[in-house]
Amino acid sequence: MSRIAYVNGRYVPFREARVHIEDRGYQLGDGVYEVCEIRDGALVDERRHIERLQRSLAALRISMPIAPGALRFVFAEMLRRNRISNCLIYLQVTRGVARRDHGFPERPVEPSIVITVRGLDPRKAIEAAAIGVSVITVPDNRWGRVDIKTIGLLPNVLARQAAKEQGAKDAWFVDEDGFVTEGASSNVWIVTRDGKLVTRPDSSRILGGITKTVAKEVARSLQLSLEERAFSVAEAQAASEAFLTSATQTVMPVVRIDGRAVGSGEPGPITKRLRTEFHKAAEIGPKLL
Amino acid sequence: MSRIAYVNGRYVPFREARVHIEDRGYQLGDGVYEVCEIRDGALVDERRHIERLQRSLAALRISMPIAPGALRFVFAEMLRRNRISNCLIYLQVTRGVARRDHGFPERPVEPSIVITVRGLDPRKAIEAAAIGVSVITVPDNRWGRVDIKTIGLLPNVLARQAAKEQGAKDAWFVDEDGFVTEGASSNVWIVTRDGKLVTRPDSSRILGGITKTVAKEVARSLQLSLEERAFSVAEAQAASEAFLTSATQTVMPVVRIDGRAVGSGEPGPITKRLRTEFHKAAEIGPKLL
Repeated sequence: MSRIAYVNGRYVPFREARVHIEDRGYQLGDGVYEVCEIRDGALVDERRHIERLQRSLAALRISMPIAPGALRFVFAEMLRRNRISNCLIYLQVTRGVARRDHGFPERPVEPSIVITVRGLDPRKAIEAAAIGVSVITVPDNRWGRVDIKTIGLLPNVLARQAAKEQGAKDAWFVDEDGFVTEGASSNVWIVTRDGKLVTRPDSSRILGGITKTVAKEVARSLQLSLEERAFSVAEAQAASEAFLTSATQTVMPVVRIDGRAVGSGEPGPITKRLRTEFHKAAEIGPKLL
Repeated sequence: MSRIAYVNGRYVPFREARVHIEDRGYQLGDGVYEVCEIRDGALVDERRHIERLQRSLAALRISMPIAPGALRFVFAEMLRRNRISNCLIYLQVTRGVARRDHGFPERPVEPSIVITVRGLDPRKAIEAAAIGVSVITVPDNRWGRVDIKTIGLLPNVLARQAAKEQGAKDAWFVDEDGFVTEGASSNVWIVTRDGKLVTRPDSSRILGGITKTVAKEVARSLQLSLEERAFSVAEAQAASEAFLTSATQTVMPVVRIDGRAVGSGEPGPITKRLRTEFHKAAEIGPKLL
């Protein structure tokens, strides 16, 4: 965990890292976030994360609180001060501090920015990927703009908690027509019996995952057949393989959906291959340290 | 505005009132709130607000951070320290501070509680009520459990901002079938041409408003005919009167919906009567000071 956090321009001891109670992120959920991986001191997919952050902020008309170049400097300083080079960087931007009122502040305020880092233990992910994970499904009851990466994650919190209590790793949201939208913090994929990769196309119903985008590129480079369309829970349970993609888990095999084994009940060959090839395709920036 | 805020057991100067960046309210929207009116030093509808707070917390399995009796003592102390006796009390409870993860913390943490007060200027409400307010309509794109009073208010923020930019006071959410659910921070009502009050019954699609509950009692005591059912935007525009109810506005006439005048375009007689009678029906507690 961060020993030092970055809060609105200052590097502060993590225990003392605080924001005002009238930060609109705290009272209204009026903010967005990103989670990026740092591997051996280099940012993974920096350009895509910055672009998505800018897209989220633009959708809410919050101004970017820091230039991308300066942000890279802050990231580097965070790695140096926390003496860490393999980690996740968490970055949150909210509309700022203002007297509580639903509408935007009359006089524009400075957006708030908070950055923390957290050590990554790659062995854990490798162990999990070797056996695969279980997921449950839950009705997708989220709001209509989950393509914006907002901090309003309560439905995801409740879905993940339900998964945890049923011994599963993640929850898959299912829309009113019975089709899977995405996981509580991941995008979802299946491999059909005839070897086709299937994942739901980007829309306002899912978050455009960066790992998902990279995984599509990997699939293309491996000349795998890819269909972008929705699939049902039953189709996923009857599929040959299933997996999820996320920045923290990259490509993670899913071996059980609502208690039903997928394929052999073990990680499948296409999933394994995608996972292996995945890191080669991510855009690794220059070393920050 | 609060000169003194209550934050996790301490009375602190408002400017210095802060919470930790890993408060789950800040990072995940994992919390609930209440807004209560204090009139002449007495809490209005305390019992109903405490019951709703307990219901919201129970729905999210967050424990009540303070006994209702102790909470009344904190309210009294806040009035005394802020030298105020007519105000709104804002109270927010979140699941507490924990390492960021979607699921609930492995080891239970203390919920966070924050309380602020804000002066109320009754003249403003009286002036607004004399001429009535305009509202716009927006598609209801919120999540499926808006009956829980959570701090995840971004859809409400965007709806209210849209209203503001169109010169309106509030936005009414409209469901996928064209029926009005509720306002961005109010419940909505119409009076039909034959004098019937109509308001949507409580469900997971609307927040069970305390002012709405009291207004229903007032309507009954006035022997007005009341129908609890959904109504469309067109029906509201063609109605004889329309109004909204909320703790901060009590009964507020709506004279224009999406630019179309309702009835005469002025506050109607039934709305005015309900507004006048309203305060008599609210449960006023003993003076806190």
